[in-house]
Amino acid sequence: MNVLYLTDLIGTGVFAISGTLAALHRRKDLDVLTLFLFAFVTAVGGGTLRDVIMQASPVVWISDGTYLIVILGSTLLAIACRRWWLGVLQRPLLLFDTLGIGIFTILGLEKALHQGVNPWAAVLLGVVSALFGGVIRDTLANEVPLVFERHLYATPCLTGAILYVLALPLGLNPTGLFLGAVGVITGFRLLALRKGWALPPIRT
Amino acid sequence: MNVLYLTDLIGTGVFAISGTLAALHRRKDLDVLTLFLFAFVTAVGGGTLRDVIMQASPVVWISDGTYLIVILGSTLLAIACRRWWLGVLQRPLLLFDTLGIGIFTILGLEKALHQGVNPWAAVLLGVVSALFGGVIRDTLANEVPLVFERHLYATPCLTGAILYVLALPLGLNPTGLFLGAVGVITGFRLLALRKGWALPPIRT
Amino acid sequence: MNVLYLTDLIGTGVFAISGTLAALHRRKDLDVLTLFLFAFVTAVGGGTLRDVIMQASPVVWISDGTYLIVILGSTLLAIACRRWWLGVLQRPLLLFDTLGIGIFTILGLEKALHQGVNPWAAVLLGVVSALFGGVIRDTLANEVPLVFERHLYATPCLTGAILYVLALPLGLNPTGLFLGAVGVITGFRLLALRKGWALPPIRT
Repeated sequence: MNVLYLTDLIGTGVFAISGTLAALHRRKDLDVLTLFLFAFVTAVGGGTLRDVIMQASPVVWISDGTYLIVILGSTLLAIACRRWWLGVLQRPLLLFDTLGIGIFTILGLEKALHQGVNPWAAVLLGVVSALFGGVIRDTLANEVPLVFERHLYATPCLTGAILYVLALPLGLNPTGLFLGAVGVITGFRLLALRKGWALPPIRT
Repeated sequence: MNVLYLTDLIGTGVFAISGTLAALHRRKDLDVLTLFLFAFVTAVGGGTLRDVIMQASPVVWISDGTYLIVILGSTLLAIACRRWWLGVLQRPLLLFDTLGIGIFTILGLEKALHQGVNPWAAVLLGVVSALFGGVIRDTLANEVPLVFERHLYATPCLTGAILYVLALPLGLNPTGLFLGAVGVITGFRLLALRKGWALPPIRT
Repeated sequence: MNVLYLTDLIGTGVFAISGTLAALHRRKDLDVLTLFLFAFVTAVGGGTLRDVIMQASPVVWISDGTYLIVILGSTLLAIACRRWWLGVLQRPLLLFDTLGIGIFTILGLEKALHQGVNPWAAVLLGVVSALFGGVIRDTLANEVPLVFERHLYATPCLTGAILYVLALPLGLNPTGLFLGAVGVITGFRLLALRKGWALPPIRT
């Protein structure tokens, strides 16, 4: 329980940092409050959408103020370190972002399964948890969301989530299964980025 | 009951097909997964928004996996037949899309009335069910939603829905009333498309 | 109670008017129905999003038809008076809009506190109530929401909401506290507009 909670908080902070840096990277005229709004939407948007669609569990940042504090702290940290992190540190940050996506996909999938959602809808809700914070951020910034561009963004999430659902009846060690699925997502995405993999476009 | 369920599944499939073809028509670089995401959003977006706003019924594709299978199958079908359907078949597809909008408007309106929503809000929720899947799809694709363009798109839906609500106290045969309202929406929209009807713009 | 209800209705009407005028100001080809849709989204979007995220109270325009009538009437009024109001009356309208934002921030904050939301999330939900109707309207119209531009839009709302939360334990007169917080938001925003105040941009 405590490990999951901590994982969730760390993922939230990592997403807030990547949301702040993404906004700083693209626009030159944002103030600190606007950056916080972008960080907030990136960090909680996907999970909020998942919880609202499931209509079952209270949205987590509403019942627990810790999340907002983590997001505020992460935004300020990202602003303070922005030159360093947008320069030399881009690669470690990409790693964190990818790790965050992996963790949030499986956390969201588990939360949906707990609510009695059918497994395939749970897979989609896991992917929504991980990716739609960024989708909402990009839509508000009037850009085409990255996830709709033709590189392997949703595919690793879907692959890891489907493998997790298929492996569930095998009765494996839960922690091992969790880490394995997160590893599949993270590894697949990093490999795809490095090798420039993409699904072939559908021509008309 | 079974007829309504089947109607709902058929409408979902038709919307998934029209979502896939609309995405293929506008962009040349989409892969199969992105097309599925567009089809999914188009097919379930409006109904999900309606259910989330009503906060009462579980969202249908979460409790019943059949919807996701129908959407996946329809997307693959639309991809397989894309050249044929984007060529000669455009007219039948427009008919299907218009029929789908008519069916979803009245199905959504009935669902809202069942939840005890006041009739005028139910009319709006019916229109939201039918049109906002497309609105969300267009917004994500960074385009102005078609429904906000000045041709008769929302007007036929509103007309059919209002007539349905006004006729309810008359105690007509439910199936006849349903088919009549769907017929009004479909006929009105097809006529408007053919004749180029539009409401006059409000000049400033 | 009755005063709050009336305040809410007046705020809804004012937002519907400002939504209609904003749409007329930017686009020349909108018909009456499209204008109503923009007015509707502007007037109820923020409060609906707040209620949906809280998953607790029924969305107000669904259970009470008065809101829709107010929105329809306000839209028609704004269309009838559009030349007058877009001309000489721009300043009084800005005042109304700013007053509406102040009222909705504190009304939304109170509603969230009543639901047992933690105070900092309640502050954010109050700001969402007041500003996200406009955010959704701008996003649908494919524009960058005003709130993400670098002028003082969210800052006065946040300031008033935070002062309200901090003053709550002091046991002041509720009406006085409400009016004071609304006054802070309205006065701060009007001053900021007049003086051209803005937070400094974060340069990279």
